[in-house]
Amino acid sequence: METNPCNKPINGESSIPSRVSRKTKPDDTIVNVNGVKVGGSEIVIIAGPCAVESHEQLFETARSVKAGGARILRGGAFKPRSSPYNFQGLGEEGLKLLGIIRVETGMPVVTEVMDTRQVELVASYADMIQIGSRNMQNYPLLKEAGLCRKPVLLKRGMMATIEEYLMAAEYILTQGNEQVILCERGIRTFETSTRNTLDLSAVPMLKRLTHLPVIVDPSHGTGLRWMVPAMAKAAVAVGADGLIMEVHYKPEEAICDGYQSLNLDEFGQLMSDLKKIAVAVGRNISLQKPATV
Amino acid sequence: METNPCNKPINGESSIPSRVSRKTKPDDTIVNVNGVKVGGSEIVIIAGPCAVESHEQLFETARSVKAGGARILRGGAFKPRSSPYNFQGLGEEGLKLLGIIRVETGMPVVTEVMDTRQVELVASYADMIQIGSRNMQNYPLLKEAGLCRKPVLLKRGMMATIEEYLMAAEYILTQGNEQVILCERGIRTFETSTRNTLDLSAVPMLKRLTHLPVIVDPSHGTGLRWMVPAMAKAAVAVGADGLIMEVHYKPEEAICDGYQSLNLDEFGQLMSDLKKIAVAVGRNISLQKPATV
Amino acid sequence: METNPCNKPINGESSIPSRVSRKTKPDDTIVNVNGVKVGGSEIVIIAGPCAVESHEQLFETARSVKAGGARILRGGAFKPRSSPYNFQGLGEEGLKLLGIIRVETGMPVVTEVMDTRQVELVASYADMIQIGSRNMQNYPLLKEAGLCRKPVLLKRGMMATIEEYLMAAEYILTQGNEQVILCERGIRTFETSTRNTLDLSAVPMLKRLTHLPVIVDPSHGTGLRWMVPAMAKAAVAVGADGLIMEVHYKPEEAICDGYQSLNLDEFGQLMSDLKKIAVAVGRNISLQKPATV
Amino acid sequence: METNPCNKPINGESSIPSRVSRKTKPDDTIVNVNGVKVGGSEIVIIAGPCAVESHEQLFETARSVKAGGARILRGGAFKPRSSPYNFQGLGEEGLKLLGIIRVETGMPVVTEVMDTRQVELVASYADMIQIGSRNMQNYPLLKEAGLCRKPVLLKRGMMATIEEYLMAAEYILTQGNEQVILCERGIRTFETSTRNTLDLSAVPMLKRLTHLPVIVDPSHGTGLRWMVPAMAKAAVAVGADGLIMEVHYKPEEAICDGYQSLNLDEFGQLMSDLKKIAVAVGRNISLQKPATV
Repeated sequence: METNPCNKPINGESSIPSRVSRKTKPDDTIVNVNGVKVGGSEIVIIAGPCAVESHEQLFETARSVKAGGARILRGGAFKPRSSPYNFQGLGEEGLKLLGIIRVETGMPVVTEVMDTRQVELVASYADMIQIGSRNMQNYPLLKEAGLCRKPVLLKRGMMATIEEYLMAAEYILTQGNEQVILCERGIRTFETSTRNTLDLSAVPMLKRLTHLPVIVDPSHGTGLRWMVPAMAKAAVAVGADGLIMEVHYKPEEAICDGYQSLNLDEFGQLMSDLKKIAVAVGRNISLQKPATV
Repeated sequence: METNPCNKPINGESSIPSRVSRKTKPDDTIVNVNGVKVGGSEIVIIAGPCAVESHEQLFETARSVKAGGARILRGGAFKPRSSPYNFQGLGEEGLKLLGIIRVETGMPVVTEVMDTRQVELVASYADMIQIGSRNMQNYPLLKEAGLCRKPVLLKRGMMATIEEYLMAAEYILTQGNEQVILCERGIRTFETSTRNTLDLSAVPMLKRLTHLPVIVDPSHGTGLRWMVPAMAKAAVAVGADGLIMEVHYKPEEAICDGYQSLNLDEFGQLMSDLKKIAVAVGRNISLQKPATV
Repeated sequence: METNPCNKPINGESSIPSRVSRKTKPDDTIVNVNGVKVGGSEIVIIAGPCAVESHEQLFETARSVKAGGARILRGGAFKPRSSPYNFQGLGEEGLKLLGIIRVETGMPVVTEVMDTRQVELVASYADMIQIGSRNMQNYPLLKEAGLCRKPVLLKRGMMATIEEYLMAAEYILTQGNEQVILCERGIRTFETSTRNTLDLSAVPMLKRLTHLPVIVDPSHGTGLRWMVPAMAKAAVAVGADGLIMEVHYKPEEAICDGYQSLNLDEFGQLMSDLKKIAVAVGRNISLQKPATV
Repeated sequence: METNPCNKPINGESSIPSRVSRKTKPDDTIVNVNGVKVGGSEIVIIAGPCAVESHEQLFETARSVKAGGARILRGGAFKPRSSPYNFQGLGEEGLKLLGIIRVETGMPVVTEVMDTRQVELVASYADMIQIGSRNMQNYPLLKEAGLCRKPVLLKRGMMATIEEYLMAAEYILTQGNEQVILCERGIRTFETSTRNTLDLSAVPMLKRLTHLPVIVDPSHGTGLRWMVPAMAKAAVAVGADGLIMEVHYKPEEAICDGYQSLNLDEFGQLMSDLKKIAVAVGRNISLQKPATV
């Protein structure tokens, strides 16, 4: 039977692209998100609502997650939605709110960019730009992010192999931007009881193959609020450098993803639990305020 | 156990977006690619090389596939490649070659666009623009294609459900462009003996749910040259409105995808076989020259 | 990165087990099901109800499918059901009914065996024993079937790679029984609009790798009655040596799988359509009565 | 579009079979494996070689894993192997060795049974019988295990949904045996860098739906020795009631699965790390000797 050259599994170091490879650079890369260092001994928590909805929503959520120990604020202004009839995000208005809350709380912010034409705009408001799972193989967008001077949070595609994921990151690095954080957020499998199947084995695999930091998104990875804490704890135990989680001050009123967002109390409780796991694996979750405050 | 609202299977007509739905428009949509009608009784064959490489390569291949019965020429100028170190296509130079061959052979051409900033450029050279599987959920690109006045060939994402696929098409239709052709090109499964798993059941499913034409790509669907004819015949039998296939005048010298490209003789033989199947299912594969010649 | 020896794709002839391999035996194996030859130029149709329910049900269905051109009767006496609270089949009583109808109609019968302790019993009533997809890697059962002197219909596991499937067949052949028919019946993927994803590319792949006959089950492969005809036609076009389909004289009253069973009229119409496809691919679907009548 | 009744996700409590459901029995079931209690506050470690090879191999491994904190010994006598040409286990001779080591070390043993005809035999040597992933839907075997008076370790099928898995367990409980331990051991996905994809989200999902204990197999779940510790830690953090791991005194000489077996030093180090995680989640890994010694 013929070998299919498109279908080869990762079977040798040679198949790992050079810039992202730990062979090329054995030491861990530390990504600096406006003073918050991702990839070191601290496990960095990124939290916030799925979508930016209003000043009140964003401010109340940001203040609380910061108090609980989150170091970076997340919130979507441009939302990739399966249906054109769903809420598409506030757009530039959302970016402006992120910019305001960023100053008011002193938290760096990360937000998604979907269009090559908007990379510059989004980067002007955000401390880190996110490329979402649907765009993991949007190569023009990856190249544009590589030209941008801000760190990039690159989420794994829901159908992407580890090798494809690393090659997507390589697209960014080839443009000169090495400040890239990887994020496992669930892959698509036959199982339907969870929204996606959170592939935690991707964390040790990626940490072995690349020097880039690796974080986990248990919110999209499970799609179930009650399951987020268990998977967040597992992610810390498995060796993740951080977590990104959806938290909303009123999940039941959230415009999107409310069913997978923690409320503020749940987030506070979870942070307390995560600190114990972090200590057990020789890491820490800092409570010190970000340098930018 | 809680219902996960993100994970619901298609379980009622209400979940099918309105513009693409056959409920909204019971009659088949005919897409007119510069005189070649897709979606009627004729099964339309689109053929050509994976990537545009040179005038000789494109011209020799185009002339032969046209003689064999192909109605539309395919060829990539901008190539989405997993690795940044692989050939990325000739870019605008490739578009210009397509423009030349289009005139020399009288065949309409289809070529891929990957970047919102290039939709206008690509549409100025092509008779139909293609959105590839990696960009099926690139919503800004879908919207831009919806604003363009050319037909759009939208390939199914390799891990997209039927429902997500229809919603992606809906993004194009909401912008006013109803000239959309759908294309099953293989989904990603656990099976590794083929490049992808060509999901032929998607054809009758899509034909039932939407009025848009549905074609099949057995080249990417299998990744194996010797298997393309069998799957092409099955695609015609199952009810596809057309096929898109990679054909190269010298597959062994092709810069990309040579292992899944038919040579000119194989293509000619296959066309002869396909015509018999087409007749057996009450369709036809025309040999008359395109109206534009 | 290390190669995982458990996870290698089929990448060389050497990985194909020897007895099933076409390298070992280039000529097609013809399986003789009490006079009905599977694997030759005739495309053999196997039809009948999911489960044996009563004499009337089985007789009326058998008589009609035979008139329509079916050569072998299917019907389950021991039913593998996901839930212990679902109908488990009539057991030996069902076997006896099969034995009676077999004589009354002159059709050979195939029925499933699930337990090593029942292989002898089932083989005493049936002309061919079936090993279902859930038992494809039930190695003691495969070995017992290999010791049995009746042909074996071995269905592909819903999660089995082509390589695992061939190795399962090899278990039967190593015991001295070479009368094995393979059957693609749908694999499990992320797609939920169909019950399984019928992997028609398995047919040409298997035909290339092994000398054993390969048939297709569009009923379980789709789980949707209205889709069975389209996929049956595609299966004939792709090169299958036969089909196995669920047909019921009153699908709306069937105890199981009624939603995927054709009624008698639908079956008759489909047979007429299939004959045209068979001719188009140089095969035939015979209407001559089985030799045993 | 029609609803496919076979394909419904778990979307209501009513779909969970009654005996295994936490609705029926809210309190955790404790499974007593000859004095070792699984499902309580202690996280129980099961360790040992893939296959029983010799007295020396089994004794040396058993003695060491017991010293490290393992409470139950695993070892295969009947091995389900994809190829008929691979080592199939020592059979009854292997059972006898397990029986000897069981007495010599005072550890309860668990071993796999594949054939309904051997359940009584295997149960006469083992303290717990295992039904492997390939047999998860081997219903006659499940029923036979349900009639047996020993606890049953039921592994999840590599492509079984949570719902199918619970229904398989229900088959055992309906026969009167409620001493069932569930085990997540990796599911099959498109990802090939690991042997399977260990679905840790199955643990909180199962713990929510059923009262049965749930353990994790990181050895088969990853297929990579170096990855086992990270996933074992994650399994404890996510809430598993125990782990089953392959450990060999000389992995490089193991007849099977050596590449995924820990050596004795690695196991000892891992146990030390796991205890810290157990404490962090309010559980414990006991070092006290089993009651039967």
